[in-house]
Amino acid sequence: MSMSFSDFDTAMMQRALYLAGSVGNTTSPNPKVGCVITQGQHIVGEGFHVIAGAPHAEVHALRQAAHLAQGATAYVTLEPCSHTGKTPPCANALIQAGVARVVCAMVDPNPQVAGQGLQRLQDAGIQAQAGLLAIEAAALNRGFLSRIQRKRPFVTLKLAASLDGKTALANGQSQWITGSKAREDVQHLRAQSNAIITGSGTVILDNPQLTVRNQIMIKPPVRVVLDRQLKSPSHAQIFNTEVAPTILFTRPENNTQAYEDLGVTSLCWQGENLFEVLEQLAEKGINEVWVEAGMTLSSAFLQQNLVDELILYQAPKILGHNAKGLFDFNVQADVLQQHSVWKTHTVTPIGEDIKWHLRHSQHVGEQGEILI
Amino acid sequence: MSMSFSDFDTAMMQRALYLAGSVGNTTSPNPKVGCVITQGQHIVGEGFHVIAGAPHAEVHALRQAAHLAQGATAYVTLEPCSHTGKTPPCANALIQAGVARVVCAMVDPNPQVAGQGLQRLQDAGIQAQAGLLAIEAAALNRGFLSRIQRKRPFVTLKLAASLDGKTALANGQSQWITGSKAREDVQHLRAQSNAIITGSGTVILDNPQLTVRNQIMIKPPVRVVLDRQLKSPSHAQIFNTEVAPTILFTRPENNTQAYEDLGVTSLCWQGENLFEVLEQLAEKGINEVWVEAGMTLSSAFLQQNLVDELILYQAPKILGHNAKGLFDFNVQADVLQQHSVWKTHTVTPIGEDIKWHLRHSQHVGEQGEILI
Repeated sequence: MSMSFSDFDTAMMQRALYLAGSVGNTTSPNPKVGCVITQGQHIVGEGFHVIAGAPHAEVHALRQAAHLAQGATAYVTLEPCSHTGKTPPCANALIQAGVARVVCAMVDPNPQVAGQGLQRLQDAGIQAQAGLLAIEAAALNRGFLSRIQRKRPFVTLKLAASLDGKTALANGQSQWITGSKAREDVQHLRAQSNAIITGSGTVILDNPQLTVRNQIMIKPPVRVVLDRQLKSPSHAQIFNTEVAPTILFTRPENNTQAYEDLGVTSLCWQGENLFEVLEQLAEKGINEVWVEAGMTLSSAFLQQNLVDELILYQAPKILGHNAKGLFDFNVQADVLQQHSVWKTHTVTPIGEDIKWHLRHSQHVGEQGEILI
Repeated sequence: MSMSFSDFDTAMMQRALYLAGSVGNTTSPNPKVGCVITQGQHIVGEGFHVIAGAPHAEVHALRQAAHLAQGATAYVTLEPCSHTGKTPPCANALIQAGVARVVCAMVDPNPQVAGQGLQRLQDAGIQAQAGLLAIEAAALNRGFLSRIQRKRPFVTLKLAASLDGKTALANGQSQWITGSKAREDVQHLRAQSNAIITGSGTVILDNPQLTVRNQIMIKPPVRVVLDRQLKSPSHAQIFNTEVAPTILFTRPENNTQAYEDLGVTSLCWQGENLFEVLEQLAEKGINEVWVEAGMTLSSAFLQQNLVDELILYQAPKILGHNAKGLFDFNVQADVLQQHSVWKTHTVTPIGEDIKWHLRHSQHVGEQGEILI
């Protein structure tokens, strides 16, 4: 398998990555994949995977290329599948179309593929290579890769605080710490996720819908309520499953009938280990989760080292000493001697506020790819 | 007095402002002033005020222009002085040189000038105008203007905190929350000020020198220790007046002889009202102060509404619940309904950290000029 790629190869793979990234949250449980087919310097077909169950990227591109696929090169951001899922294997489709060369950004870590797609292409006499812009491709599919390789979704924790790191006044009031631009941005980021996790405290205190407002959602993110003691009232807005699906995690001894009657899916959780929750979400095909919760649950995700990215909106307000802080845990005295595990990816002004985008250096690489 | 200015006028005044801003903290108690002299489209002289006691900007520019000042236009960032201070009045020098037109950015609010310089020029038949780039000129001399108009220096409060708004671990450890780049930046900003204010708590806990490191200082900022109960040990580094001058503010009943023997200037302060301190510093010709103190004093400056700008360095570290917060005061419940008094001027990545530069919207205008 030759690893030499031309500038044209790189440009075409960049285009395939761009296509793959055109979609929002709809491909899960599948990865985001893009494909470009070329004859010489001409692009003759391209496509991307839109939504699970619909054709894969390669199929769209091959249909567009039609007979021009004969002898062509196909650039695919992920190794073509070799197994029959909801659609037939793409490796076979590429062989049947008479493609001469297939360049992949990365091998599909899905054990049902894992190099078998490339092998099948090579066995058919096609020149099949992988490794072009592999890191970029891995960053694009951080959620899918996390689910396959770590058995849990990629986790983003959203926080909002004042200049002095406070999230609410002493009286509990927390609405509108940040401005309208920051709140719009939250909607945008919620829409990128497959699930939005919150805790019973937030449900009881704020009664949020946790839907995506002002956007048409083909697959609205699943709302996930963690409620060990089942204290959330079933009339809370989050249990209205007509606007978006809801999953309730609670201890197995609690009676969830009233919630199930509303269309809520209830799953068991012992109430401590958040990996149990993430694992079950991964089993349901959730690639990316967005945690938007109160101090207790946000702190627990951090303490259990299950946060990959942190998005912190910070307003230039001072809430003072008695106001509520961000976290409830204490840290070791050696934290100041150590390098921060959090790396600042970007800091962006957003209205009157700022938005920190931080990555956990043990979980996420410099280019946004997950680290195993 | 005509208020019409050409593009060339504007360009020359921008140059004069640039010249005026070339200096650091040395002009105090004087303002920063720049001057450009032109004949037609030619610059024939320019200068800026370097240090109190040395010639004013106009004198340097006139010397350079020599006989070419005859019939020339002089652009000055501040109204030429009409009184004899350490140097003779600049208005007279401009008249004697035969300048035909004088354009000023702003009138000098110093009651010893306050329009009399312009008047004297006009009485001599010179076309004298003011108001070109006045806001920019006011921003440049925010410290001088504050001292003259508000009887106190311009106050910048420096803070450093973690992502969760903490300044020190529960054990008091606070060294190196922020990285080396942020600490270098502090040195740079200290050097811009005429005085650095701290409290006895910081002197006792950290024993800082509060000098400017790695920079040659013509006029090292005065260190100012606020110590109501005179608890700071006289052997503290800050009382070594061989490296920089020190002023000690304490209650009048305390015996400051040991400090005075070290060359420290002691001044009286009842221990509550920080305006008393600032007023006495203004009387000593201090235009700009930099407050680098602990939670108590930083909080007091904020609560007494005496902070014009806030510089907050924030590190992407989490110090946790038990760590020390930024402030010791509580705020009113209506703070969330109100517009923030703090306006984000810039947010800049600085090494691994970020630097917030915030302005108090009641004290400082959009362009950095002080508001009265």
